[in-house]
Amino acid sequence: MQRHFPKGKRGPAENFTGNAWNIGLVDADSAYTTSVGNVYFEPGARSNWHTHPGGQILIITAGVGFHQIVGQPKQILRKGDVVKCPPNTLHWHGASPDVGMQQLYIVPNTDKGIVEWKQPVTDQEYNGQ
Amino acid sequence: MQRHFPKGKRGPAENFTGNAWNIGLVDADSAYTTSVGNVYFEPGARSNWHTHPGGQILIITAGVGFHQIVGQPKQILRKGDVVKCPPNTLHWHGASPDVGMQQLYIVPNTDKGIVEWKQPVTDQEYNGQ
Repeated sequence: MQRHFPKGKRGPAENFTGNAWNIGLVDADSAYTTSVGNVYFEPGARSNWHTHPGGQILIITAGVGFHQIVGQPKQILRKGDVVKCPPNTLHWHGASPDVGMQQLYIVPNTDKGIVEWKQPVTDQEYNGQ
Repeated sequence: MQRHFPKGKRGPAENFTGNAWNIGLVDADSAYTTSVGNVYFEPGARSNWHTHPGGQILIITAGVGFHQIVGQPKQILRKGDVVKCPPNTLHWHGASPDVGMQQLYIVPNTDKGIVEWKQPVTDQEYNGQ
């Protein structure tokens, strides 16, 4: 899988299942009110459920993975896909079981906050529809 | 050069010198207040001078190019580079003379506006420091 950015650091176990490698590209500030970074999820790895007060945009740059908004079907994501998750909406994202996924994330409206972490995604949720 | 997104449409001659191919990935709306897209500049191609009322973030995903903020030296950009241009600040970006450049652009704070186009970048400016 082609990498476009340095691998970065492993996301903390309290917020991720498996290995998710994160590198920040743009730190939020008052002028741009935007946080940008790159995450590589190893196969099977995923975020906990979480919300963003200002929403989130994902741009998939390699591999295969999933995105799920609470109460909706799990979406399959591939290179070139763009996903939006509305403000204050519970969601998770991660790799497929057999192929990793690389994504850019954009968190807009960071004057409202960046992220609120919730419970892990269970195997039943991860493997479900 | 690896493409991550469809090539899109050629930017209009009144805003670009040479061939710059643009595809929108996220249209601005009131929830995300963010516009995202991908541009491939063919070698020698560049934008006109322009400003963004809410600033702009560029993420270089392939090739070699330039970014210049008015009154500052021209920066050379390569894959993995991240550039920020502050709100209401005159700038231009484009490819190097011999190698194209592919970039993602993020325009935040679109509630303030998206872009204001100005005059072309002359050959003297393009080839200068």
